Amino acid sequence: MLGRVNHVAIAVPDLASAAESYRATLGATVTSPQALPEHGVTVVFVTLPNTKVELLEPLGDQSPIAAFLAKNPDGGMHHICYEVEDILAARDRLRQAGARVLGDGNPKIGAHGKPVLFLHPKDFHGTLIELEEV
Amino acid sequence: MLGRVNHVAIAVPDLASAAESYRATLGATVTSPQALPEHGVTVVFVTLPNTKVELLEPLGDQSPIAAFLAKNPDGGMHHICYEVEDILAARDRLRQAGARVLGDGNPKIGAHGKPVLFLHPKDFHGTLIELEEV
Repeated sequence: MLGRVNHVAIAVPDLASAAESYRATLGATVTSPQALPEHGVTVVFVTLPNTKVELLEPLGDQSPIAAFLAKNPDGGMHHICYEVEDILAARDRLRQAGARVLGDGNPKIGAHGKPVLFLHPKDFHGTLIELEEV
Repeated sequence: MLGRVNHVAIAVPDLASAAESYRATLGATVTSPQALPEHGVTVVFVTLPNTKVELLEPLGDQSPIAAFLAKNPDGGMHHICYEVEDILAARDRLRQAGARVLGDGNPKIGAHGKPVLFLHPKDFHGTLIELEEV
């Protein structure tokens, strides 16, 4: 069921400083910041040959990464996103196996314009998993 | 400087249960457990089309992931490993930029038989970064 790793998301308290450190210190290609108010984050992508890293900074009062940054003030790895071919089939299979899908279980349109779902980290060994239909 | 994401490492308290959940629930290909006493971990690889996820369980009394699991008893994303072409050149460049390389700064032979170094998470927004020469 799991396909490619679409991205690894890292929450950071200061996006400009993190982007500069990936660009200048680590020598990676980093895109310009993109505000996604409907997702409560501003994002840059670190483009790597086989996948990408998303650096996320909270945007607005209801940011879904605010609690994570309150617990991890330096930042840290927030989630991993896997591609799936059929997100509704994936959801049904996961539910049947007893895994919890976050929210109301209906896919939302994610940062890349594709349907996404998140799985409960307690059901996957402390890792927040995003599934994205491609 | 950064090349491919070689792997994303996830520390788990129970490797057999985690491997089964990636295999049966998430439908991924998972290798057999490999004990790496010199690294203080037992590992399985979740093989994905573009990269891999390493699931790590502590092995022995001096496991380098024991403290992480004490803080995150459910498990969680532990580090991300990027490939570099020349690990000594990467180390020197990072040090010149003020980043801290863990240990004595001499690459060790990692789980894949290649030279590796780890960078201080405080210098990279809370993320533990491994560099592996390929």
